[in-house]
Amino acid sequence: MTKYVYTFGGKTAEGNASMKNELGGKGANLAEMCLLKLPVPAGLTITTECCTAYYKNNCQLPKGLMDEVHAGIKKMEKIMGMKYGDPANPLLVSCRSGARKSMPGMMDTVLNIGLCSKTIPGLIKKTGGNERFVYDSYRRLIMMYADVVMEKAEGIEPADGQGIRKQLDDMLDAYKEKKGYKSDTELTADDLKKLAESFKARIKKVLRTEFPDDAEAQLEGGIKAVFKSWNGKKAVSYRRIEGIPDDWGTAVNVQTMVFGNMGDTSATGVAFTRNPATGDNQFYGEWLINAQGEDVVAGIRTPNPLNNETKNEQNKHMKSMQELMPNTYKELCEVRRILEDNYHDMLDIEFTIQDGKLYMLQCRVGKRTGVAALTMALDMLKEGRIDEKEVVMRLSPEQLDELLHPILDAADEKKHTVIAKGLPAGPGGAVGRIALTSEKAKEYRSAKIANVLVREETNPEDVEGMRAADGILTARGGMTSHAALVARGWGKCCIVGCDAVKIDFDKKIVHIGDKQFKEGDVISLNGAKGWVYAEPVGMINATENPLFKKFMKLVDKYRKMGVRTNADNPEDAQNAVNFGAEGIGLFRIEHMFYGKNSEKPLAKLRNMILTDNTKDRKAALKELEPYIRKAAKGTLKVLDGKPLTFRLMDPPLHEFVPKIDEKEKIAALAKERGMTQKELVKRITALHEVNPMMGLRGVRLGIVYPEITETQFRALFQATAELMKEGFDPHLEIMVPLTINVKELEHQKAIADRVQAEIEKKFGVKINYMYGTMIEIPRATLVADQIAKVAQFFSFGTNDLTQMTFGFSRDDVNAIVKDYIEEKIIPADPFNTLDQEGVGQLVKLGVERGRSQRANLKCGVCGEHGGDPASVRFFYKTGLNYVSCSPFRVPVARLAAAQAAIEEERSKK
Amino acid sequence: MTKYVYTFGGKTAEGNASMKNELGGKGANLAEMCLLKLPVPAGLTITTECCTAYYKNNCQLPKGLMDEVHAGIKKMEKIMGMKYGDPANPLLVSCRSGARKSMPGMMDTVLNIGLCSKTIPGLIKKTGGNERFVYDSYRRLIMMYADVVMEKAEGIEPADGQGIRKQLDDMLDAYKEKKGYKSDTELTADDLKKLAESFKARIKKVLRTEFPDDAEAQLEGGIKAVFKSWNGKKAVSYRRIEGIPDDWGTAVNVQTMVFGNMGDTSATGVAFTRNPATGDNQFYGEWLINAQGEDVVAGIRTPNPLNNETKNEQNKHMKSMQELMPNTYKELCEVRRILEDNYHDMLDIEFTIQDGKLYMLQCRVGKRTGVAALTMALDMLKEGRIDEKEVVMRLSPEQLDELLHPILDAADEKKHTVIAKGLPAGPGGAVGRIALTSEKAKEYRSAKIANVLVREETNPEDVEGMRAADGILTARGGMTSHAALVARGWGKCCIVGCDAVKIDFDKKIVHIGDKQFKEGDVISLNGAKGWVYAEPVGMINATENPLFKKFMKLVDKYRKMGVRTNADNPEDAQNAVNFGAEGIGLFRIEHMFYGKNSEKPLAKLRNMILTDNTKDRKAALKELEPYIRKAAKGTLKVLDGKPLTFRLMDPPLHEFVPKIDEKEKIAALAKERGMTQKELVKRITALHEVNPMMGLRGVRLGIVYPEITETQFRALFQATAELMKEGFDPHLEIMVPLTINVKELEHQKAIADRVQAEIEKKFGVKINYMYGTMIEIPRATLVADQIAKVAQFFSFGTNDLTQMTFGFSRDDVNAIVKDYIEEKIIPADPFNTLDQEGVGQLVKLGVERGRSQRANLKCGVCGEHGGDPASVRFFYKTGLNYVSCSPFRVPVARLAAAQAAIEEERSKK
Repeated sequence: MTKYVYTFGGKTAEGNASMKNELGGKGANLAEMCLLKLPVPAGLTITTECCTAYYKNNCQLPKGLMDEVHAGIKKMEKIMGMKYGDPANPLLVSCRSGARKSMPGMMDTVLNIGLCSKTIPGLIKKTGGNERFVYDSYRRLIMMYADVVMEKAEGIEPADGQGIRKQLDDMLDAYKEKKGYKSDTELTADDLKKLAESFKARIKKVLRTEFPDDAEAQLEGGIKAVFKSWNGKKAVSYRRIEGIPDDWGTAVNVQTMVFGNMGDTSATGVAFTRNPATGDNQFYGEWLINAQGEDVVAGIRTPNPLNNETKNEQNKHMKSMQELMPNTYKELCEVRRILEDNYHDMLDIEFTIQDGKLYMLQCRVGKRTGVAALTMALDMLKEGRIDEKEVVMRLSPEQLDELLHPILDAADEKKHTVIAKGLPAGPGGAVGRIALTSEKAKEYRSAKIANVLVREETNPEDVEGMRAADGILTARGGMTSHAALVARGWGKCCIVGCDAVKIDFDKKIVHIGDKQFKEGDVISLNGAKGWVYAEPVGMINATENPLFKKFMKLVDKYRKMGVRTNADNPEDAQNAVNFGAEGIGLFRIEHMFYGKNSEKPLAKLRNMILTDNTKDRKAALKELEPYIRKAAKGTLKVLDGKPLTFRLMDPPLHEFVPKIDEKEKIAALAKERGMTQKELVKRITALHEVNPMMGLRGVRLGIVYPEITETQFRALFQATAELMKEGFDPHLEIMVPLTINVKELEHQKAIADRVQAEIEKKFGVKINYMYGTMIEIPRATLVADQIAKVAQFFSFGTNDLTQMTFGFSRDDVNAIVKDYIEEKIIPADPFNTLDQEGVGQLVKLGVERGRSQRANLKCGVCGEHGGDPASVRFFYKTGLNYVSCSPFRVPVARLAAAQAAIEEERSKK
Repeated sequence: MTKYVYTFGGKTAEGNASMKNELGGKGANLAEMCLLKLPVPAGLTITTECCTAYYKNNCQLPKGLMDEVHAGIKKMEKIMGMKYGDPANPLLVSCRSGARKSMPGMMDTVLNIGLCSKTIPGLIKKTGGNERFVYDSYRRLIMMYADVVMEKAEGIEPADGQGIRKQLDDMLDAYKEKKGYKSDTELTADDLKKLAESFKARIKKVLRTEFPDDAEAQLEGGIKAVFKSWNGKKAVSYRRIEGIPDDWGTAVNVQTMVFGNMGDTSATGVAFTRNPATGDNQFYGEWLINAQGEDVVAGIRTPNPLNNETKNEQNKHMKSMQELMPNTYKELCEVRRILEDNYHDMLDIEFTIQDGKLYMLQCRVGKRTGVAALTMALDMLKEGRIDEKEVVMRLSPEQLDELLHPILDAADEKKHTVIAKGLPAGPGGAVGRIALTSEKAKEYRSAKIANVLVREETNPEDVEGMRAADGILTARGGMTSHAALVARGWGKCCIVGCDAVKIDFDKKIVHIGDKQFKEGDVISLNGAKGWVYAEPVGMINATENPLFKKFMKLVDKYRKMGVRTNADNPEDAQNAVNFGAEGIGLFRIEHMFYGKNSEKPLAKLRNMILTDNTKDRKAALKELEPYIRKAAKGTLKVLDGKPLTFRLMDPPLHEFVPKIDEKEKIAALAKERGMTQKELVKRITALHEVNPMMGLRGVRLGIVYPEITETQFRALFQATAELMKEGFDPHLEIMVPLTINVKELEHQKAIADRVQAEIEKKFGVKINYMYGTMIEIPRATLVADQIAKVAQFFSFGTNDLTQMTFGFSRDDVNAIVKDYIEEKIIPADPFNTLDQEGVGQLVKLGVERGRSQRANLKCGVCGEHGGDPASVRFFYKTGLNYVSCSPFRVPVARLAAAQAAIEEERSKK
């Protein structure tokens, strides 16, 4: 029979840290901590496999599971010296989720399970008559259990959205009001007892079931509810964003309850073994005396600092644990050491002190900002904890990207006044319009308007709005609050716990300090300092960080695949070279028809497009040639010695002429060109295509109008010849776009050969260049062996290849792709991350067949995917020689390539 | 050393009929006739391989070739008892081309080679002093040689297009005029002698070379010129049309000259061993006394009938060979018998009688009409000459197609001039008045006036006009354009993409080429060739032939692959069943939105499209459902027991709503729907797609709007249930279009299952149907194994698959495809004939992967290629279970499938 339950506790465990897939992250690490002899309340973990079985089994627990659980509970009882459901010495448990990857706050938890009329008196006795504590725990159990197990897990849709939790909260508030209490702590044991009874009555009335007054029933209900919450709305949408597969399932951890709220010798806290925002090697955390764990995370009370070293503006007046509980703090520091020695990484830990005794409740590798990841990795290299390759693996490509993100311009910041300070929870800077709801943030995002989401605090429902925002500002919460965790995970600028923020939702107004803002007003955030400004502040690119350079050196040391850039002018080329690009993988001459200084070449291009005879077309091309030559020459000069891959023109012809209904533009253009409007309209109509994506494009243009190809070769060869004469070292690679077979390449090559001979004769030089092709039409991959007879290199255009392989027009399927991801039909947008299953097959085929013909065929990729880390890994595995991406993505691609090489090496071991 | 020369003559030969690839058709058959002991003037054949070597060798004859030729000439001299270049007894030769496949008139020939000042006296003596004959032969040699060898083969471009041949012809005419001669026969020996001299002087002046007065030089020049003519303009363009590869090369036949023009005991003729027009078993031919072969073919003199049996209106007054040369005729009849006994086929022969002696100069399998092919094949089966399988192989699919449509009378066509050429999109012929609008065509139709609908291009609104027309001619569009698809579906004569057509709607005038027509003028179309005539051309009706039925029975006896039809209504279904369809492979419900009775369902569809909310969409669909049900039910009823493959709706949404600039239509529709014009325009704009071919189509529609899928399943299942109750046997197969992965199929299947259960419960029946998918997106072929987990059958949509695999939009690339074929970049229009090299790979992959998952997976094809013989052969080889094509193509597909099966069997032997 499958083993579904793994126990831990008493300085031993059945599992260990490597069993994340089976036990979830939390369960595996609890087991590991036990093996490290750390103080962990005994517990058991039900495997993720059991969750999968539960769903396969039509939401029934597998047969025999509860027997296994009971056997585990027996062990826990023995270790803890208590008995579950025992009237005299009752053991209480928590039921918590724990997936392979952390999904903070996305699934449900039930605490204090095992409290019922049978066990309450025993617990009171055990706690020295602390009736208030016990009834407070009891009413918490009832509230959580009713919400999570009895309502949500049963799929009950509350009428008017008035869920049971809300109703019970309202009852609590009403009771307090009646009694004139301001805080929960004023509630007496008797109050809580009464409240528990009225809660149970309300539950029965609303949910038509009794709250189970039975430890056994509570336990089974708790386990089921955690499984059920795996498919809760929040969890599903989080998985969608994070790309976590639906079939992973969650584990359930049933663990002995320990209480941080049993008086002033009790406490609870969370900490990072190093500073997760800066990477500094300092023990960094927050704690609260006489509190339960959720109080720290929820952001209701502002927590105390862990030690003196890390006090900040907000909490410098508060006592640290170092000050108040020096011995326990020392014990915790030792735990920190042991964990870092064992995990060789920064850890995020949760602990509770029950009546002076320290318990570890969780440890996991901690989330960190890009800067922190960089700093820690290089520090740990110095400390000898990790080797160079591991350093390279420690920074995710996304974190590296974060380092490249813009920040507020410090010089400009000085000119503005900080109107409020909060906790620096997420990196970088942000300037944008205030959005008071997630909906508003999303609205701004789709209109491409920079925005800052301003909230009292965030909760999991806000996840999509947070993603849509450029920055996040919350009034409440600490560095480990929901908003902080999520923002840091994404490398998004975020300030939390900024209590100067007061929001009036009804009036759609927010006060920050003494300033008043309407939704839509612009503010600025400095995420590294936690500072807020009332006006737009200038932004600059992340400055040259010496650690960054050191890191990239290591990256390049282990990288095997080349990284080039897609750039169309000298400036971008220089920029990309600064970012480490080893050449240009895609140079689009069409660039010169857009933006400033484009009027003249554009006019020539229009002449070329709008004529209906070869003579005039040739004349227009002759005038266009110097512009092409100049553009190519300028960039080749910057690259001096590095290759430039020039794609033969593939202009969307119809984009360069007015639309049929643009009457004024047509009139103007007709006048300019000295043709009648009717003639012009006729010509524009002739250019119209039903599906321009699959029409007169790419090499087709060069075959129908060979003079277009000829002009480009002339410009390129002449630019090369001139540069050679001037003492430069131009490395020209010319590629033909949209190829479907080798004959097209032969056709264009014949033109090239003729022009080359002509230019060589004229300049008295020998021009060396590579002649290649884009592989971006499915057919090209199928006949790649033939194509490689002529092509000296392949550049996979995975954008178009994805379009044709899916039959997805990028311009049209945006909404469809969204629906498809929503309906779980495809896992991700194939234009962002290469569809390895489908399009990837064609890339692989193209490479294999091409090299079967020409063993040393150089293969690269120049689609958007060249800057996507997952795709870069795939391209490395597929044996590509290089990827090419936009200048800003070059470091990311370099890192992804290096990591792929290291992963490959590791997998071979 | 490679053997380049094969001799024949003296009732023996080095080659034989099976060596067509090496010796060309003519050479192989000359050898075969020698082996059959028939009287053939001795000669030699230089192989096609030598031609290839010649071109590889930069147009130099291979070394040693002329030595081989001389050895061969020696043999010929011995057999014929003459000597080449000998003053006393000179042997003259002809140099003729002969490729693997006949290319009549496309390459060059030189006759009388070997005549020079040295041999002329001997020949005069040998012919009993026939000086006139010898000098006539000489001036013919000079004229041909100057043209073919000295000018064309040397690649000399004559100034003003005044080639040497034209100049010599003019000189001849001038001479005759000066002398007052009316015919060549009046020229005396002396005249001819003088002419020869002035010819030679002109040649020297114009071509700057002497006409070679040397038998040796003439021979080598002749051989080279024939090789050269393989790449002449005519030959190349003929090969392009006939699909003959450029690298086949031509053989050269050097054969002893015999003369049919040596007086009244000499003659020349051509004959078919059976009537090539009717297939009747009668010896059919034409001959001329005292003439050379070219005189018969050239049509200058009206030739005599071969025998009395075959005299006709034109030649009944003329003497037959049977009458004038009864013995030779008897000898020729014996030749006919021997040849048919040997070749088991109808032959096309050429003969010459020199001074009473019969010589065979050529035999080859004769071209024939479809009717003739059918008649002969079945006759020869009766005669025991061929077996049943051979009968099936004897009729090409094109010939069969010819039998199914009324066509222009080929004899009458010759009397008219082709004024424009377009793509042959629909079969048969049409003669009728020009209608420029659908309304006009319908008007003509109701007045029973034959008419041809002439349009820029057609769209769905024209469907009724197209039905009303006898033929369709469009200026734009390709073989798979709307007009072509519709026309072919109906078996209607149609020419598309005829860019010589310019319509002026305002003036109701159309220009075709340089002719101008008014609406109502009569034109004629040859749909098989794509030719347009300015006048009425005679038509012939292909009558109901009982032989056809007999033939198709044999076809089905040897056919292994199924043939279905693409039909969308009961009438077409019935029609196709009559043509032998075994079911429907593609039923498009969209049909009901076109043509008559479409107003109501179209209004519902518009409601469905134009609403922006699910509620209204569901309401519209509810009203649409009965129409779908009725359409499906009616056709299922006709098919009773035969399968109907229903494709889930894949409507081009934007085609069903007015265009943005159609102000009046928008106003009307807005009024009808009770919405503002602004709202309507907004909705239409939202429907706009940049590349509709790759947008919201197919299954995507069913996933975004599952209610559309649900409605269709409900209609189909209910139709099935009703028919079952009524005692019919509905075989429903439902397929999902545009699938990219298995998840889409699962998504739609869940809807199907729910509706099925509902209908089964309501009607108390168990519905059996097959659930499958179209494979028409490249990605689907790549993940076909996964798709086959859910799909019970695949139907390859090779139209869309071709579009995506090539990145060719059918609507746009017509002109590009033309250029591509012209530039030899692709061999044929991939929308006509499946691109086996590229798209074929994906079809193969799809079948293999699909069956790797589901061994008995039924695979078919429903693209236009299902009716293309070459593609059908490929589909058979690829293991498809069936092809589906338009009703009129069903017999063609049946034949192609049977031939593929027989070919496969033969290739295994």
